[in-house]
Amino acid sequence: MQDNSRIEEVLSTLDKGLPQALDRLVEFLRIPSISTDPAHKDDVRDAAEWLCAELAGLGFDASVRDTPGHPMVVAHSPKGDRRGLLFYGHYDVQPVDPLTLWDRPPFEPEIQETPAGRVIRARGAADDKGQLMTFIEAFRAWKAVHGALPTDLTLLFEGEEESGSPSLQPFLRDNADELRAGIAMICDTGMYSDGRPAITTQLRGLYGEEIVIHAADRDLHSGSFGGLAANPIQILVNALSTVKDENGRVTLPGFYDGVPELSNELRADWDDLRFDASEFLSRVGLKHPIGEKGRTGLEMVWNQPTFEINGITGGYTGEGFKTVLPAEARAKVSFRLTGTQDPLAIRDAFRAHIRAALPADCRVEFHDHGASHASRMDITDPAFAAAKTALSQEWGREAAYIGAGGSIPIAGDFKEILGMDSMLIGFGRDDDRIHSPNEKYDLDSFAKGARSWARILAALS
Amino acid sequence: MQDNSRIEEVLSTLDKGLPQALDRLVEFLRIPSISTDPAHKDDVRDAAEWLCAELAGLGFDASVRDTPGHPMVVAHSPKGDRRGLLFYGHYDVQPVDPLTLWDRPPFEPEIQETPAGRVIRARGAADDKGQLMTFIEAFRAWKAVHGALPTDLTLLFEGEEESGSPSLQPFLRDNADELRAGIAMICDTGMYSDGRPAITTQLRGLYGEEIVIHAADRDLHSGSFGGLAANPIQILVNALSTVKDENGRVTLPGFYDGVPELSNELRADWDDLRFDASEFLSRVGLKHPIGEKGRTGLEMVWNQPTFEINGITGGYTGEGFKTVLPAEARAKVSFRLTGTQDPLAIRDAFRAHIRAALPADCRVEFHDHGASHASRMDITDPAFAAAKTALSQEWGREAAYIGAGGSIPIAGDFKEILGMDSMLIGFGRDDDRIHSPNEKYDLDSFAKGARSWARILAALS
Repeated sequence: MQDNSRIEEVLSTLDKGLPQALDRLVEFLRIPSISTDPAHKDDVRDAAEWLCAELAGLGFDASVRDTPGHPMVVAHSPKGDRRGLLFYGHYDVQPVDPLTLWDRPPFEPEIQETPAGRVIRARGAADDKGQLMTFIEAFRAWKAVHGALPTDLTLLFEGEEESGSPSLQPFLRDNADELRAGIAMICDTGMYSDGRPAITTQLRGLYGEEIVIHAADRDLHSGSFGGLAANPIQILVNALSTVKDENGRVTLPGFYDGVPELSNELRADWDDLRFDASEFLSRVGLKHPIGEKGRTGLEMVWNQPTFEINGITGGYTGEGFKTVLPAEARAKVSFRLTGTQDPLAIRDAFRAHIRAALPADCRVEFHDHGASHASRMDITDPAFAAAKTALSQEWGREAAYIGAGGSIPIAGDFKEILGMDSMLIGFGRDDDRIHSPNEKYDLDSFAKGARSWARILAALS
Repeated sequence: MQDNSRIEEVLSTLDKGLPQALDRLVEFLRIPSISTDPAHKDDVRDAAEWLCAELAGLGFDASVRDTPGHPMVVAHSPKGDRRGLLFYGHYDVQPVDPLTLWDRPPFEPEIQETPAGRVIRARGAADDKGQLMTFIEAFRAWKAVHGALPTDLTLLFEGEEESGSPSLQPFLRDNADELRAGIAMICDTGMYSDGRPAITTQLRGLYGEEIVIHAADRDLHSGSFGGLAANPIQILVNALSTVKDENGRVTLPGFYDGVPELSNELRADWDDLRFDASEFLSRVGLKHPIGEKGRTGLEMVWNQPTFEINGITGGYTGEGFKTVLPAEARAKVSFRLTGTQDPLAIRDAFRAHIRAALPADCRVEFHDHGASHASRMDITDPAFAAAKTALSQEWGREAAYIGAGGSIPIAGDFKEILGMDSMLIGFGRDDDRIHSPNEKYDLDSFAKGARSWARILAALS
């Protein structure tokens, strides 16, 4: 119980150090580490170097590890005899377009007062730099009180999470012995929407694809060729319009193989969360849920698969008008997957669907943008109960086991490659605007997040 | 017969002056007069001033006339007693994107040797600056031989043809008495595809529209909202996929009202042209005609209406991938119209079709991009026969009456506002790549085009 007797000291150390902690976060957020944009390659590395220096300063054995893509940051605390923990986060961020919709430059962080309390506004504030720093501030306070870091901590911070993590699986395989621990802690999820603390126990998988349809070998004038020549935009539009039926169900053969019905137990837990889909949508200017008929809101976002068109472009999109039949048209699409759906089988079915829509003259290119299974945690591991208690104590509310609609393939990779389960604990809010203009992170999430990790460290020691 | 006795002198003057005529055309093509792009507003005016100076130098009473948009150039030759002719062309050009597909800068004209003969390559070479200059060179040679311009010529050159001619109708109405003539000569069409001289006697109309579908008030993360929130790209795609049925027929109610069946006489003429749709498409890397089943190729491009998606954009279209549900999606579409189809009735039907596809949450904006009726000329006017003979003499082949798939609303405007018919005579080729990268105009078209106008001037004197 020694650690628990000193937890209050650690918590008050965190409270006293909050201003300095925010200064560190602001500095981190100033680095535009957009991993999908080659123009920001050096910025991504700068963010890795910054993290590595922070960790070395705390006494971690920290290093920046090169990969074929962006680097990994790996750090270890001194070896001890307790069951080891692996902490994972990512230091890369989403692109910022459309820049015109940002109220201020996305990489000039600002602390702002809002009706809901103070927030820090910047790209990456919530996804995932702010959350990642809650780990580091907890370790810092722990060391200040105990004079040393907790033993057997391994930290793994990635710089390619927003671009499909191409280097992650090989890196885990090549460094499995170094990285394997008793359980992983992943800080890339959120609270339940009304601010209730939560541990995410299931995540949707993702399969992403870019399609390029080619027709004529040049742009054509619709006056000369309209009516005779294939229009790749029309072909693309027709193909994408039939991936879902009028009830919102995906029509690809075998698509629903492995999609589980919700267990009565989880259904009861989720019903208890009193999720109101219309209220949820009203935060973004919408009201009416779409999607598969006959499902509850939480089923739709946590337990059902989806098909979405994430981007489309073709022909003349500038000012004014141009009566052109373009040479090509493009779309980026993604499927959210659940249960044991097989991303590769679905990719085959989707590509067959697109090919079937092509006239003789046209050809299609596919560009793979990642494929990951959904994942579910074994919540009978006592560490889950311990963490749930620690979270409930910090937030004064019973923590909930929830699902997540987003993909965190790392959880599946840890299971598959390192044979370990993950605890997905984060302090993001539904209104954080991750992946959107004007992303923010609540200071309350940041401060109590760090306190939560300190409590969890104590509870698992 | 005096004029005809001197036509050979005019033709040899044109032949001797070709190098200087090309220098003038190159100078004209260097001016990037893109009327749809506000950034080129001054360039459009420069092109008007350049033309006005050329015409004044030939002894025309020429002026640049301001409009709410880009200016008109109007010129008159001395009044005489013969039946007047109105010559129309446009000095604005299409946008040049995608610039990367151009082999050289679009506004640095170059004379190039090709297997099919010499061409001048630049944006606007064929559409319409090169054709417009065939008028002017014919007048120049005529004056050199006769010592004076033909009498009763009126020239009207427009700078908004590629952007829907918003100022044209008001300008024609405000200046009807000044501009009215016996017949109009319009130089914005082509030869029949195998280089056979032609007079275009019917043109398709055009209705253009931009659609913007709005859903959430910001871009959303498909992990958080996918499955629940409306995706404006999917809504747009679904709506655009049902405008045509599987046989290529437009499904809008009343769309085919006023679409004429081809007369047996014209069908015979067109069959005589031996149009091979597969050969035509093979020039642009295609082979298989699409479009409404059971129609001949020429019917499809000249006598049948079409629906085309000219541009589409929404969501993330940059490098890499972004799992976003965008706030909006856009498309530019156009319909080619024939017979007496009513553009405004079709606009109403199309807008109703899009609105019917909108979920409760979403809204749509429409931006009108012009609406013009199709037009048909009265070829019993003897001027048609005279011009047909002159063309046949110049090219050594029987000139043909043909249709055009493109829209030249000016022909309809001349009929409606000035009560005059038009003769559509041009020397463009199907491979001129108008509206596409690497646009060109054959020097043969330019030289024999000017000679053709000299013959027509003589024939109609």
